[in-house]
Amino acid sequence: MSRRRGAAPPAAESLRPVAGGGLLDRRVLLRGGLALAGAGTVAAGARAAGDGSAPAWMKTPGEPFSPYGQPSPHERQVARRITANRVLPGNGAAFTPIEELEGVITPTGLHFERHHNGVPPIDPAQHRLMIHGLVRQPLVFDVERLLRYPMRSQLLFIECGGNSNAGWHPEPIQRSPGSFHGLVSCSEWTGVPLGLLLDEAGLEPGAAWGIAEGADAFAMHVSLPIARLRDEAVVALYQNGERLRPEHGYPMRLVVPGCEGVLNVKWLRRLHIAERPVMARNETAKYTELQPDGRARQFTHVMEVKSLITSPSHGQRLHGPDTYQITGLAWSGHGRIRRVEVSADGGLSWAPAQLDGPLLPRCLTRFRAAWRWDGRPLVLKSRAIDETGARQPERAALLAARGSNSYFHYNAIVAWAIDEDGAVTHVYA
Amino acid sequence: MSRRRGAAPPAAESLRPVAGGGLLDRRVLLRGGLALAGAGTVAAGARAAGDGSAPAWMKTPGEPFSPYGQPSPHERQVARRITANRVLPGNGAAFTPIEELEGVITPTGLHFERHHNGVPPIDPAQHRLMIHGLVRQPLVFDVERLLRYPMRSQLLFIECGGNSNAGWHPEPIQRSPGSFHGLVSCSEWTGVPLGLLLDEAGLEPGAAWGIAEGADAFAMHVSLPIARLRDEAVVALYQNGERLRPEHGYPMRLVVPGCEGVLNVKWLRRLHIAERPVMARNETAKYTELQPDGRARQFTHVMEVKSLITSPSHGQRLHGPDTYQITGLAWSGHGRIRRVEVSADGGLSWAPAQLDGPLLPRCLTRFRAAWRWDGRPLVLKSRAIDETGARQPERAALLAARGSNSYFHYNAIVAWAIDEDGAVTHVYA
Repeated sequence: MSRRRGAAPPAAESLRPVAGGGLLDRRVLLRGGLALAGAGTVAAGARAAGDGSAPAWMKTPGEPFSPYGQPSPHERQVARRITANRVLPGNGAAFTPIEELEGVITPTGLHFERHHNGVPPIDPAQHRLMIHGLVRQPLVFDVERLLRYPMRSQLLFIECGGNSNAGWHPEPIQRSPGSFHGLVSCSEWTGVPLGLLLDEAGLEPGAAWGIAEGADAFAMHVSLPIARLRDEAVVALYQNGERLRPEHGYPMRLVVPGCEGVLNVKWLRRLHIAERPVMARNETAKYTELQPDGRARQFTHVMEVKSLITSPSHGQRLHGPDTYQITGLAWSGHGRIRRVEVSADGGLSWAPAQLDGPLLPRCLTRFRAAWRWDGRPLVLKSRAIDETGARQPERAALLAARGSNSYFHYNAIVAWAIDEDGAVTHVYA
Repeated sequence: MSRRRGAAPPAAESLRPVAGGGLLDRRVLLRGGLALAGAGTVAAGARAAGDGSAPAWMKTPGEPFSPYGQPSPHERQVARRITANRVLPGNGAAFTPIEELEGVITPTGLHFERHHNGVPPIDPAQHRLMIHGLVRQPLVFDVERLLRYPMRSQLLFIECGGNSNAGWHPEPIQRSPGSFHGLVSCSEWTGVPLGLLLDEAGLEPGAAWGIAEGADAFAMHVSLPIARLRDEAVVALYQNGERLRPEHGYPMRLVVPGCEGVLNVKWLRRLHIAERPVMARNETAKYTELQPDGRARQFTHVMEVKSLITSPSHGQRLHGPDTYQITGLAWSGHGRIRRVEVSADGGLSWAPAQLDGPLLPRCLTRFRAAWRWDGRPLVLKSRAIDETGARQPERAALLAARGSNSYFHYNAIVAWAIDEDGAVTHVYA
């Protein structure tokens, strides 16, 4: 049995800032003895609360077992925020409350939704997936048939191409991080590698694109390059261990790692192999980016490197000068996050954040930094670098490159201002 | 754009068995062209079903957005199986239906439960955690205070020490894998490393054990060595991204990676630091293993290396001679799974299974193997080896070592017999 005496107080040098605004060495998070916010000695009264008379719920038997569990009634406020079209209520989005969550898995019930004409109530026994067009042998699969194929499981983020698009507004929008950046979520997706099915159908010469169609009343359809479909896409049947839920594509969904949400076609019913893309509404009028020269970027499938501090963040209030954990999320559709840096002086100086492992490609990565706030106003930022070397841009640089007519693929650095009362607001800085 | 012609049919040698009973090379799972169960050409009628008239749910707008999603009504049968005590309905267990799940994450609503006097309806504003005993400074934490501390996220399995204990029966029990082995589940747990809190309290000389107590009506308490608490345990506040649910310890739970479920004390309210263990009921009369010589093994905290084929498994029926994916789960409380082997001839010969990465310590690992069944009766088995070199034992070896009076820590190889009709039953073989 290993024993040791009480831990020594933290060495003074460990609390010496490593960057402006009070950022501490990230290793401080791993050490004992750090006098953090609210930790301290115990008053006699508080001690009694912890050690004295038993609370009411220890004096009577508790609630029974449940076949399928639900969150605590005390956490009801942790919900998706819905912004649906009033005229077409099935057209809209439901945002993940990312500032209320920890780790990297999104609870399936809180995974963001983006639908164009509601959630179809599909009978799985009647649902079919057809692969046809430029193939030697068209194939039809029902759910039972697909369930017999070899599967692959991966932890992957999915982000809507329109996530964070309030960032294009000339004035900084004051919203919770989830209501602003919450069209990104992360799950374990399990399904059949589409390449197995395409090889079985046999691609014909000229097969260059696949047009995927969903079985919703919008008949959502998009075009994807055949190489990406063959080498990376999965026909997902399970999310976070269980069969897909209706709003995420039950009974089957196309999952294309790292690519914008609209390509991850829910309720997948058809994959038409063709020579050319179909030029659907959602790859021409929408999900393209108008450039300053009047031309539009199209088929910008991969989501760029991005990060965001979720705590402290808009709507929160620091309780006063103290030591805090800064935490947030980083991700890149191009692969793994290599590094996240945090600034507490509006970007003048930066310190590396601690990353929670394992670092997985195209998965959310949780970062953490230690910070001593002295009570003066300042601006917090984070910036991510991925394994390809791509760097998250400052907002000014993004606007310089892309102009101000854009709507999709906003990935600029997010800045939170802390005022002298500890209130957190969104700023362009 | 990369293009290619239709994939070649599988090379004949790839379908040559690598072990008895029809086991194929695991790389077959990754190749195209494998003619798998049910895949084939499309009759004109089937083609019409996939490509013809749109289904009813494409002709009318779908369901609206939801603040917190739920599984499909078509999946209602996927639920925890409850075996509660009739006299004391809060004492029992609810089993994860592992044969219905894929990947390694357990949906939080299906994570197994084991309670001794029900689920306490705790008001988080009133809940306190006290650390006292052999410490320089006793401390009390409420939820708000703990939420300010640095956190750590880890994907971890939790397994009840009594999981699979029907394996001790002299006759093989015929139950679904979940009802037999479903007291194991896997989540992303996020919380405050307990070492930070212990260092802040300051361990006194002689501090060798921590006695953890839950705030349920059973006042569940257990003793843990201080080194394990300080170096590995976490006070968990989040499970799979959201705050803990009531049946998993809301608002806070002790999580001790790799250790039997009973040590992961739910509704944690107290940690008493002491020189000796408290010799509680659940570390003396229960959660110990009676040996052939009449002595009992005690404080057997770490869960041993184990694996299980979840498909095909008891209660399933193969549709006939064909090629199948064998899949299952492996885990070890000692670290990472290094290797899983599968046998289709009752253990005479073995072939390595494919492991879905990343391979994480003390996390479930999904394995897969390709298998061509010729329709003759045979016995399927899996066995796991962890990174310490520990090997999952055959049942006879486990009984030889531990006798037949045991009840906990059963980790023997599981054997499924396939009969000529494709029916799967549990056998000792």
